[in-house]
Amino acid sequence: RSGICSQITNAISDFFFEYETPRQVLVRDRRVGVACRLIQLGVLGYIIGWVFIYENGYQSTDTAISSVYTKMKGVGYTKINGTESVWDVSDYVFPPQGDSSFVVMTNFIMTEGQQMGKCPELILFQGQMTGVCVNKTKTCEVVTWCPVEDDSSIPYPPLLMSAENYTLFIKNSVTFPLFGVKRSNLVEGIDTGYISKCIYHPENDPLCPIFKLGDIVKFSGFNFETIAKLGGAIGIVVDWTCNLDLDKKYCKPEYTFHGLYGNADETDVTRTSVGYNFRYAKYYMEGKVQKRTLFKVFGIRIDIIVQSLARKFDIIPTLTAIGSGVGIFGVATVVCDLVLLHLLPKKEFYKNMKFKCTDSHIQVSSTLCINS
Amino acid sequence: RSGICSQITNAISDFFFEYETPRQVLVRDRRVGVACRLIQLGVLGYIIGWVFIYENGYQSTDTAISSVYTKMKGVGYTKINGTESVWDVSDYVFPPQGDSSFVVMTNFIMTEGQQMGKCPELILFQGQMTGVCVNKTKTCEVVTWCPVEDDSSIPYPPLLMSAENYTLFIKNSVTFPLFGVKRSNLVEGIDTGYISKCIYHPENDPLCPIFKLGDIVKFSGFNFETIAKLGGAIGIVVDWTCNLDLDKKYCKPEYTFHGLYGNADETDVTRTSVGYNFRYAKYYMEGKVQKRTLFKVFGIRIDIIVQSLARKFDIIPTLTAIGSGVGIFGVATVVCDLVLLHLLPKKEFYKNMKFKCTDSHIQVSSTLCINS
Amino acid sequence: RSGICSQITNAISDFFFEYETPRQVLVRDRRVGVACRLIQLGVLGYIIGWVFIYENGYQSTDTAISSVYTKMKGVGYTKINGTESVWDVSDYVFPPQGDSSFVVMTNFIMTEGQQMGKCPELILFQGQMTGVCVNKTKTCEVVTWCPVEDDSSIPYPPLLMSAENYTLFIKNSVTFPLFGVKRSNLVEGIDTGYISKCIYHPENDPLCPIFKLGDIVKFSGFNFETIAKLGGAIGIVVDWTCNLDLDKKYCKPEYTFHGLYGNADETDVTRTSVGYNFRYAKYYMEGKVQKRTLFKVFGIRIDIIVQSLARKFDIIPTLTAIGSGVGIFGVATVVCDLVLLHLLPKKEFYKNMKFKCTDSHIQVSSTLCINS
Repeated sequence: RSGICSQITNAISDFFFEYETPRQVLVRDRRVGVACRLIQLGVLGYIIGWVFIYENGYQSTDTAISSVYTKMKGVGYTKINGTESVWDVSDYVFPPQGDSSFVVMTNFIMTEGQQMGKCPELILFQGQMTGVCVNKTKTCEVVTWCPVEDDSSIPYPPLLMSAENYTLFIKNSVTFPLFGVKRSNLVEGIDTGYISKCIYHPENDPLCPIFKLGDIVKFSGFNFETIAKLGGAIGIVVDWTCNLDLDKKYCKPEYTFHGLYGNADETDVTRTSVGYNFRYAKYYMEGKVQKRTLFKVFGIRIDIIVQSLARKFDIIPTLTAIGSGVGIFGVATVVCDLVLLHLLPKKEFYKNMKFKCTDSHIQVSSTLCINS
Repeated sequence: RSGICSQITNAISDFFFEYETPRQVLVRDRRVGVACRLIQLGVLGYIIGWVFIYENGYQSTDTAISSVYTKMKGVGYTKINGTESVWDVSDYVFPPQGDSSFVVMTNFIMTEGQQMGKCPELILFQGQMTGVCVNKTKTCEVVTWCPVEDDSSIPYPPLLMSAENYTLFIKNSVTFPLFGVKRSNLVEGIDTGYISKCIYHPENDPLCPIFKLGDIVKFSGFNFETIAKLGGAIGIVVDWTCNLDLDKKYCKPEYTFHGLYGNADETDVTRTSVGYNFRYAKYYMEGKVQKRTLFKVFGIRIDIIVQSLARKFDIIPTLTAIGSGVGIFGVATVVCDLVLLHLLPKKEFYKNMKFKCTDSHIQVSSTLCINS
Repeated sequence: RSGICSQITNAISDFFFEYETPRQVLVRDRRVGVACRLIQLGVLGYIIGWVFIYENGYQSTDTAISSVYTKMKGVGYTKINGTESVWDVSDYVFPPQGDSSFVVMTNFIMTEGQQMGKCPELILFQGQMTGVCVNKTKTCEVVTWCPVEDDSSIPYPPLLMSAENYTLFIKNSVTFPLFGVKRSNLVEGIDTGYISKCIYHPENDPLCPIFKLGDIVKFSGFNFETIAKLGGAIGIVVDWTCNLDLDKKYCKPEYTFHGLYGNADETDVTRTSVGYNFRYAKYYMEGKVQKRTLFKVFGIRIDIIVQSLARKFDIIPTLTAIGSGVGIFGVATVVCDLVLLHLLPKKEFYKNMKFKCTDSHIQVSSTLCINS
């Protein structure tokens, strides 16, 4: 029947032509008014001041895709038993290809001319036991690379103290995929001319991408001589914290330096081995015999760690923050109501104003609804 | 005129001395009351129980900057055609410098004494065609490193089965920059004495940073003999899930082991090549001739993956959660109102109580506003 | 006394048997009704359309733990001063073990037979000064690896232009720990048969995990001949953006290619050094003398970058979005009330309907509460 149609039409027109708004009680009381308004203003201040301005609640965030390329420069020099040697980048950097994590050799124990054979071990588990033990050394004979390495004394001063003057060039590009922004640590103003003569300094040259190894060690809190002797690990954090609501030229890297492990001053010194070392061999043939020169390398491991956080205005977090703020505003009202209805002398009066009763059965305990 | 001033003053004093609170209807109905209170208590329980306690909605989170250093220990032994060889760390770990991702050689095909020359290829594309084809081998002659590698049969049992007993030492330091907390996997109680004799075990020694390679393989679900023959990749996840509201000494790592690829039991076995291998050469000069020994290395690749999530109380997520909870609370009221105004027998009565009409034109369909 | 008990019992029964609902004014005004309903519908549309459908506000997100294994294939060929050489994977990939970041050599400057000695340097700081300067070369004598490298002219065309035809096989497995989902880039349908003959093509074979090096360079916007001469860095982004509410077989990788640095067309060309190069040495013994062949390697560095974002329905973000939406809904009411009470001609009438006064002192300025 058309009655249903007209009913639906009426319901829709009712819905569109009506507007509901809550009925309110205006409480005219100076103390209550001031207290509640201050609570409300406090909440408003919190939402605007903290969420929006301090925490940038109106922005969405993104972390970057990053790529790092490193290049060491510098030449080391040693004179061991009268033999002069020069160590260049391909001799002292592991791995050679410019990774974001690499080791710079600063000290080493070299065992030359090792070949497969039988010899008494110096410490346990250096090779495959042959079953023969040797009186003179009080150890057993093993099949292994002979002569076995003797790493009981570490050269001091470190053989490559000159490493202090090596320089490290860092090239780092970051892309924020969400915002389509691409940056390089060679920002505006860092041109070939500047790079050719600058050295990073936290105040004077904070954007120079060339670092002296000695500075890196110093900034990270290590002592160069100690770390050079035993090795250690240092993190160079490249921090890209960018507000992309501003021009992207203000999006610049910041470099910080952290000792990662091996720091002799750290509390964990008593607990674990200090230093950073690894073994590495150069292989060669002598006639038909495979030989090798074994290096126990002590070095500074450098990890370039890229940390990034870009922010840009976005409508979603803005509205979420507003919506959540309105919710907290509601909490302020609840607190004021509690005071109004339970703590004030005139609370019964206010209850009467605020509430209307729909009692179907009169309750004696309810002073409120008797009066209504 | 001073009228405007006094008006503004009045508006401001009105604003501060007044307080608005919504007028409410108290519905005295047992069924409605109990139902609505239960819905509201459910929402409240959800907000407190789930959001706050289970999901820690009152805390902000941070992930760590992490650095990993690894060191293998152990000696392998092979006897091939009567030649005894011993393989130490610098022979079987690639790369040598203690990275978080490395390969431990467990099997290999060695092609000794390769030099540049012309020889028939075994499989296609092993070198630069010379144009000559050889009847005997039914392949063509190429310029390449001769003799070419023959990898048609893989040694079994694996040549370095002894790899099962190698040990891996992991040193991992994490920094949560937001909370200024720095931790190492060598936590309180893991001192030099303990490390010198412990081996990781999930129940007995869950914090020991020294792992037997055989255990790692077992925990990750591989069979050692299979993986040692063909190679495979294993992820060691170091999980730092920390509640920094507690003392930071409770922030401890957890180690888990996952097969990444090459697992013979995996479903993708039928689809793709099993195993992990790469080629690697040792170069040497024989007289004036450049020669090399080519290794096809089958090995276990280990990726140390650091996963971190620290939580700490923060006022912002707390208030956001509360604000959002108040919003959901409002949804509970809407649901109750729907029941009250549309489903109950006395709905017209309740409508009358709740709504007040401002009708300027009387509508017949609106029984509500006629009565008001 | 039992009076307190009964009071508490009464309070609890009051709480459970009562239900409060706000009293509302129904404003019967076509213009106000339509305007406010439209604002409310707009807010509702925003919440449902944008937050839920467009931004997937009902889902929680997770990023993956990922592991990458790479394998190059292909053979290079050079003929320098009549000497034919073939370069296979173990000759031209650094490092050899299949890392996610590696360099493919495309050009090089080889300095053969270097040994420790004294010779005049070509550029500054190539070694340790002896104090002697040489008239002929106008430079000073240094202790260093002699003869020193002369990298003043870079071979062109690049020596290993054939690198264009090398292929790269990428194996990538990702695990979303929150959702317990594990995927490999060898998805359903990418079987051994397909892999043995496919080459990645963005439209025809978007899931083939085998890439021609020349294609990678082209897709990233470089010119192969330029990058091969001087080197450069390319990022291959493997993008796992997955909706895990669907079947996990729809969770597939997407490959994109980005020039990272060294691109000759980039704006930073004028500012910084183009190209990617590093030095690397092969060591050997000649008699008792340590010698080396130094390579200055120009190459294409490839970084495989895994980006992942999985989404799945979760009750927490759903309720947070709803709660926040209800809050924004409240903002709509506030806006409508502002219009109703301050802009409409009948505003005093509406104020009277909405507000009820609790005045204890009559204020002249308040027309509202005089009437009440």
